[in-house]
Amino acid sequence: MAKNEILKTPTFETWESLPTADRFAFFSNLPRTEAEELFLSLDISEQYELLAPLTYLEKRSWIRLLEPDDTADLIQCAKEEETNEILSLLDTATRKEVLVLLAYAEDEAGGLMNPRFARVRPNMSIDEAIQYLRKQSPHVETIHYVYVLDFRQQLLGIVSLRELFNAQLHQKIHEIMETDIITVPEEMDQAEVSQILSNYNLVAVPVVDATKIMKGIITFDDIADVIEEEATEDMQKMGGTEALDLPYLKTKFTHMIQKRMGWLAILFFGEMLTASAMGYFEHEISQAVVLALFIPLIISSGGNSGSQASTLVIRAMALGEVKIKDWWRVLRREIGSGLVMGSALGCIGFIRIILWHELWGTYGEHYLPLALTIAISLIGVVSWGTIAGSMLPFILRRYRFDPASASTPLVATLVDVTGLIIYFSVASVLISRYI
Amino acid sequence: MAKNEILKTPTFETWESLPTADRFAFFSNLPRTEAEELFLSLDISEQYELLAPLTYLEKRSWIRLLEPDDTADLIQCAKEEETNEILSLLDTATRKEVLVLLAYAEDEAGGLMNPRFARVRPNMSIDEAIQYLRKQSPHVETIHYVYVLDFRQQLLGIVSLRELFNAQLHQKIHEIMETDIITVPEEMDQAEVSQILSNYNLVAVPVVDATKIMKGIITFDDIADVIEEEATEDMQKMGGTEALDLPYLKTKFTHMIQKRMGWLAILFFGEMLTASAMGYFEHEISQAVVLALFIPLIISSGGNSGSQASTLVIRAMALGEVKIKDWWRVLRREIGSGLVMGSALGCIGFIRIILWHELWGTYGEHYLPLALTIAISLIGVVSWGTIAGSMLPFILRRYRFDPASASTPLVATLVDVTGLIIYFSVASVLISRYI
Repeated sequence: MAKNEILKTPTFETWESLPTADRFAFFSNLPRTEAEELFLSLDISEQYELLAPLTYLEKRSWIRLLEPDDTADLIQCAKEEETNEILSLLDTATRKEVLVLLAYAEDEAGGLMNPRFARVRPNMSIDEAIQYLRKQSPHVETIHYVYVLDFRQQLLGIVSLRELFNAQLHQKIHEIMETDIITVPEEMDQAEVSQILSNYNLVAVPVVDATKIMKGIITFDDIADVIEEEATEDMQKMGGTEALDLPYLKTKFTHMIQKRMGWLAILFFGEMLTASAMGYFEHEISQAVVLALFIPLIISSGGNSGSQASTLVIRAMALGEVKIKDWWRVLRREIGSGLVMGSALGCIGFIRIILWHELWGTYGEHYLPLALTIAISLIGVVSWGTIAGSMLPFILRRYRFDPASASTPLVATLVDVTGLIIYFSVASVLISRYI
Repeated sequence: MAKNEILKTPTFETWESLPTADRFAFFSNLPRTEAEELFLSLDISEQYELLAPLTYLEKRSWIRLLEPDDTADLIQCAKEEETNEILSLLDTATRKEVLVLLAYAEDEAGGLMNPRFARVRPNMSIDEAIQYLRKQSPHVETIHYVYVLDFRQQLLGIVSLRELFNAQLHQKIHEIMETDIITVPEEMDQAEVSQILSNYNLVAVPVVDATKIMKGIITFDDIADVIEEEATEDMQKMGGTEALDLPYLKTKFTHMIQKRMGWLAILFFGEMLTASAMGYFEHEISQAVVLALFIPLIISSGGNSGSQASTLVIRAMALGEVKIKDWWRVLRREIGSGLVMGSALGCIGFIRIILWHELWGTYGEHYLPLALTIAISLIGVVSWGTIAGSMLPFILRRYRFDPASASTPLVATLVDVTGLIIYFSVASVLISRYI
């Protein structure tokens, strides 16, 4: 939250290199100003941990260093029974602000915003505005933008400090203010807010309610965190776990198991269908055991091509490059890719079997129909993998689920069952006549 | 590049909703100022496409709107034969700046920076500095920070506009400037620069050479793009493709196949080992075909748990939460997780087989050793999956490869081969005595 206008010595680097156990001692021994700099540059969860061993009065002096939006985050990070203690540490005005922020969900605009912003009236002269701003400067998050409000706190316009700086001293604010401005509503999701700030390259964006009354600002540095957070959540989901709430090494063991076990069990149940599916082909396998040897090769090729397709589509959706209406364009591309890549792998597989047979006579007299079965199955399975992998995110999104839930393991599981059916169907046509 | 201090109407929204084919017409029909706003809010690749159909003189007027760092990016995005044409469109001073920027790699600090920043001398009074800054303001990227340089252009200190604003007019710059400052070297990787800006919540960071001579600044908005870009690259690699250079729908079909086919073929060759491994157990399979039915279930469970582990570790490494020296802590955790989750899946698998057998008599007289084989194999395979998945990123990093190359498909392939060996080894001990 633009905590440090300019940060001083990298005490932070030393801090980072220390083992967790030694950090508190290091922090306690720093001179106050350095300790403050360090404290303000830490993540909320680290700030929270540092404060835990302190006495009530010591806590107060640290908590009061924080901006209201950071304090609200800290409370959301603390145990529920500590909420009142932390609130009681604040001065009355800040406590009010923090309570308002706590009413918003953590991941919506209202939960991200800082209610302390620089404000002026439209009929002030530039000179007056600058005087007024000088007074506010120590109490607001940024003076990069100055917000022009009427007496009901409705947002009329914005003046950037740069424009204020370049204007003539006798001009009025309303003459130089920009009125055609981008605002976000309080309940907008943080991912959307971050898209807006990053698309328009804004340092800050104002948050307004339905009646245009200005509630606070969200600044660029909150957004860097949001972008990172959202990417992390997506990646974790794509890898087949629920998103962790804390960094990997800080997540408790039991909590980590919870986050991973759910999906692992669901996928396991899904994958049980492969045993059932193969039950139908038990006869074919007992007649030609050689077919079993290629099961992992066939199904994993489908899983891999599906994983590529789903990853590319999920990320493109998250960045807004691909929208739901593009599904047909994506499908056409992926069918094409699937056929080309499946044919290539099919060729490699075909040659591999012929080669092994010529060299070592591995696959008995029916090696040719076997090779053909493998080649054709690969084309089918790889194409099916790319289709399933690319379309699943669209289907999830259409029904308002998170497309990132189309994780690599989920796609692989879907493709495994169908891949086996494709493989054994091709085999029963091409091979069973020889047996 | 802080292109728009405050952006005007969301013409951008309309633009985004249009099909690509109609965008140029829409752009051409906008009034000049709106078209300029739109143009400046677009990505480099979109700007490049918009300019392509224009005449030489038309191009000039648009190219000259860009900051030198954006122009350099545009040239890097253009075809090689167009470089000279674009350079010839610039005025002499800008051309020089752009040529300097082009000498840096696109993804290092020197390639990201903007050489136009606000500068003052240490012995100026605040009053003089403000006058001087007013003159520079239209020509620099941001006036949020003002850089104090000596006559050799060495960086002595920084003054934030806010501090300038709060100072007494008769004070000297060197009295209020901050001298203990964070700088980055020209050749620092963009991912590291972005970590620094985001850790310290800076709006801009100065880039200096080995002799402390200041070369330019990198601003927060470049960093939002970098964070997004790096996350995208990591995700794509983790999904088993090479990172795409362009958005999904803009990547040419043949190019897309190239990016995906390499890994797909490598994984296919790796997966061929499963066929060889299973060759050794052909006798066991022919004696107990029922073993074949559970192959996909066993190996996919290992793949899924490995995919979870590698995803969590790769992302934690990218965010700096886990360092190489933490490998032992991670290993201990993952062995624990693997045993717990493997045991849970083992129980489910055991019950499933007993249940099916009681209900339908599916698995013949030796269903109990079969159920035991499945359960024990699952514990082994899932534990091995988490160990392999969590340690592979460390090994890659240790040997200076990108940990994100430990893609879900790669981990799954590794685990498939060993999973089969575990499964059939357990089976040959527990089952073969009954056959």
